[in-house]
Amino acid sequence: MNRFTSVHDLINGPGLTQALQDARNVVAHPWNHEALGKHRTLGLLFMNPSLRTRMSTQKAANLLGMDTIVLNAGADSWTLETQDGVVMDGGTTEHIKEAAAVMGRYCDILGIRTFAGLTDREKDYNETILESFVRYAGVPVVSLESATRHPLQSFADLITIEEHKATARPKVVLTWAPHPKPLPQAVANSFAEWMLQAEVDLVIANPEGYDLSSDFVKGATVTHDQDAALDGAHFVYAKNWSSYEQYGQILSKDRAWTVTEDKMALTNNAKFMHCLPVRRNMIVSDGVLDGPASIVLDEAAHRVTAAQVVLMHMLKGLA
Amino acid sequence: MNRFTSVHDLINGPGLTQALQDARNVVAHPWNHEALGKHRTLGLLFMNPSLRTRMSTQKAANLLGMDTIVLNAGADSWTLETQDGVVMDGGTTEHIKEAAAVMGRYCDILGIRTFAGLTDREKDYNETILESFVRYAGVPVVSLESATRHPLQSFADLITIEEHKATARPKVVLTWAPHPKPLPQAVANSFAEWMLQAEVDLVIANPEGYDLSSDFVKGATVTHDQDAALDGAHFVYAKNWSSYEQYGQILSKDRAWTVTEDKMALTNNAKFMHCLPVRRNMIVSDGVLDGPASIVLDEAAHRVTAAQVVLMHMLKGLA
Amino acid sequence: MNRFTSVHDLINGPGLTQALQDARNVVAHPWNHEALGKHRTLGLLFMNPSLRTRMSTQKAANLLGMDTIVLNAGADSWTLETQDGVVMDGGTTEHIKEAAAVMGRYCDILGIRTFAGLTDREKDYNETILESFVRYAGVPVVSLESATRHPLQSFADLITIEEHKATARPKVVLTWAPHPKPLPQAVANSFAEWMLQAEVDLVIANPEGYDLSSDFVKGATVTHDQDAALDGAHFVYAKNWSSYEQYGQILSKDRAWTVTEDKMALTNNAKFMHCLPVRRNMIVSDGVLDGPASIVLDEAAHRVTAAQVVLMHMLKGLA
Repeated sequence: MNRFTSVHDLINGPGLTQALQDARNVVAHPWNHEALGKHRTLGLLFMNPSLRTRMSTQKAANLLGMDTIVLNAGADSWTLETQDGVVMDGGTTEHIKEAAAVMGRYCDILGIRTFAGLTDREKDYNETILESFVRYAGVPVVSLESATRHPLQSFADLITIEEHKATARPKVVLTWAPHPKPLPQAVANSFAEWMLQAEVDLVIANPEGYDLSSDFVKGATVTHDQDAALDGAHFVYAKNWSSYEQYGQILSKDRAWTVTEDKMALTNNAKFMHCLPVRRNMIVSDGVLDGPASIVLDEAAHRVTAAQVVLMHMLKGLA
Repeated sequence: MNRFTSVHDLINGPGLTQALQDARNVVAHPWNHEALGKHRTLGLLFMNPSLRTRMSTQKAANLLGMDTIVLNAGADSWTLETQDGVVMDGGTTEHIKEAAAVMGRYCDILGIRTFAGLTDREKDYNETILESFVRYAGVPVVSLESATRHPLQSFADLITIEEHKATARPKVVLTWAPHPKPLPQAVANSFAEWMLQAEVDLVIANPEGYDLSSDFVKGATVTHDQDAALDGAHFVYAKNWSSYEQYGQILSKDRAWTVTEDKMALTNNAKFMHCLPVRRNMIVSDGVLDGPASIVLDEAAHRVTAAQVVLMHMLKGLA
Repeated sequence: MNRFTSVHDLINGPGLTQALQDARNVVAHPWNHEALGKHRTLGLLFMNPSLRTRMSTQKAANLLGMDTIVLNAGADSWTLETQDGVVMDGGTTEHIKEAAAVMGRYCDILGIRTFAGLTDREKDYNETILESFVRYAGVPVVSLESATRHPLQSFADLITIEEHKATARPKVVLTWAPHPKPLPQAVANSFAEWMLQAEVDLVIANPEGYDLSSDFVKGATVTHDQDAALDGAHFVYAKNWSSYEQYGQILSKDRAWTVTEDKMALTNNAKFMHCLPVRRNMIVSDGVLDGPASIVLDEAAHRVTAAQVVLMHMLKGLA
């Protein structure tokens, strides 16, 4: 596996079934593969702040015996040029071609964290920065969240669902919830994409104007009626995103969409999920988040599991 | 020992006598306990800048064979909400409940650095951030300086005094000294609290209006006459702090309180101490700081010793 | 070797011939000296952003089995006072004397990255910050680029030339090239200084007003005619620098000095070199940089080699 930027890389690599089996194994025996990463270096490049991704990926690298070098773009280093053929007489100090290639010379695997700009939809959905790193790094690249996907999060979510599910094919509801600031669609896109490959029935509930790109949700049931969606659900995955259609806009902050105890009462004793960080009493009420249905900390903990399985397969593929 | 936020945690744990014996042992044989931290992760969260704490704690973790993950709040991650029941529709992006619990899932021990805001005395002295981490992390928490105490510094100070003392019960003077900016009372509070548990006679000298909270200095001699205090002293510990009574205010920048060669001549050949960083020729004259009486670098070096002893006891307590 | 701040430290230590032999050895067997750095700590202090230096030096330390602690001055810690005798009642929070001495207590070797201010030539060329660290640290100090030199870069450049040269004594051309912002002379100074010690013929080409300090280029051929300089060259090293004479000024952004395919056609099939980051189509055309003559990635990769050889000799010198 020489890239991990979406669920398809895992499917084309070890396969989803094997990856979930690997997840159970590394949870049971976290240090069993410590020799695999000996003398291997993981480079992590962050272009925006991060808590879970930063810590969990370093932890996963430690579990595999790898050395890690962390770089914060901007604060620690420079601003990247991504256009081809440009005369670089402005604010960008290094072309991504060199930056990626140089980092690839120092590291055996690179992790890259980028973020949607939310102004130019085509630019965001082209994934220029991530794809340039994949193209020029010369070593395997792991997405630590990109403009349109957050595959390590989604893999952790799937591991968590597998761990908590009580029925063979649970009903999973991805519901939009309000937030004061415009957020990317990455987590929602990615969650949908992964669920559509898993043994679950996916229903997506969001207000009008918030439909996600059909590239990610084709095959899922999409509704604008949250209550109907929640009926009989086994897992409720709440997340805010800004509009894909009116790109990057906030069309609603309607707290009728906040996941409360009343909303959870509509479900089939569902577990509550969120990728964190979460805005309390906007996305979800204190009662739900602090109550027994919440499995958000398990999701966060499985970020280590997900990263460890992905890095493990990449390490196995190295010469 | 599942928390280290004041001298009392050490007293309730191994006891101060044992801790000082441990300090001598780790200085003599710094790598003897390298196996103790194998496969253990120390997470360090900094909410404000730091040189000594950052480096010495990482060094201590290395000596114990631990992996360390460092996070700068703000720059690297997010802004924390500390109030309960709030609707998070403003600037804070994550509640401390989740942040602490998630970090506790990734790490075996957490170190937290916070700082007094110096505007709301009750809020600072309640230690909301530190205590929330202790409450929600689910793993042992080490204070890397909090709003009202700096226990690793004070422990290092005590180790240094033990190393340099020539009499069984030395006279130790904590003296206020001028500084251009308002500083917390944390170092002074903490030093007083530790000295009152140690085999020393503590005298505190400060201008009127600068008396520390009685919670920290009860049992010490407090005077507003610096010269009288210095008479016969074996150790002079200089430090600036802003007013506790007129909270966070600067009432004086009187350089008559600067510790000079003339002031040191009043003592019983005393050693000069300061936690660093120090404002030269405000807190202390160049002559004293660069002269043979200064043991500030030993104090700084013993920050490693103090952290190593504390982490060692925490590691021993882990399952 | 207890300092590495210019080529002379290597000459006065193992010697240049041995250092180049060591470079070949560590490239062939990168992990052979992993035991050498066991229980040794490298402290890296960055006063300005960096990609290659930050990553390559950490990688070199890993290869030698060292622990590394990285500190970003400003963001992570404090502002440094460098003047003697000053009353520190202003913006600087710690004197470099204490900062260096404390870091020297925590680390076995220190690496320091400073940068020219480009306003006060005498201050820059006195290397106050770097020399203060050398004087007060009490442990060996490695320059990670200073106001007037970038010796790890120049060492990497020399290793790269040795690797690619096809004639015993190649002609090496250092040519100025345009850039939108004022840059230090450090890389150019340092490259000239190293080449003058190596088995090469050095020609320096720059516009009038851009002559480098004679302290660095004495013995080299200096011309203002780029085309004449390029004639018969085996290596072309492009770099921008601001004026030394009209200190820190930009006197020209003339893109006739950009290294293009046409310029390279004047050479003896020369290799193209640059320290990176490089402004495309200002310093060098896309065609040259992306073409077979470019060896910029090898230079970047040999930053690890250079740092490893330097650290190796320092480690051998430790008690």
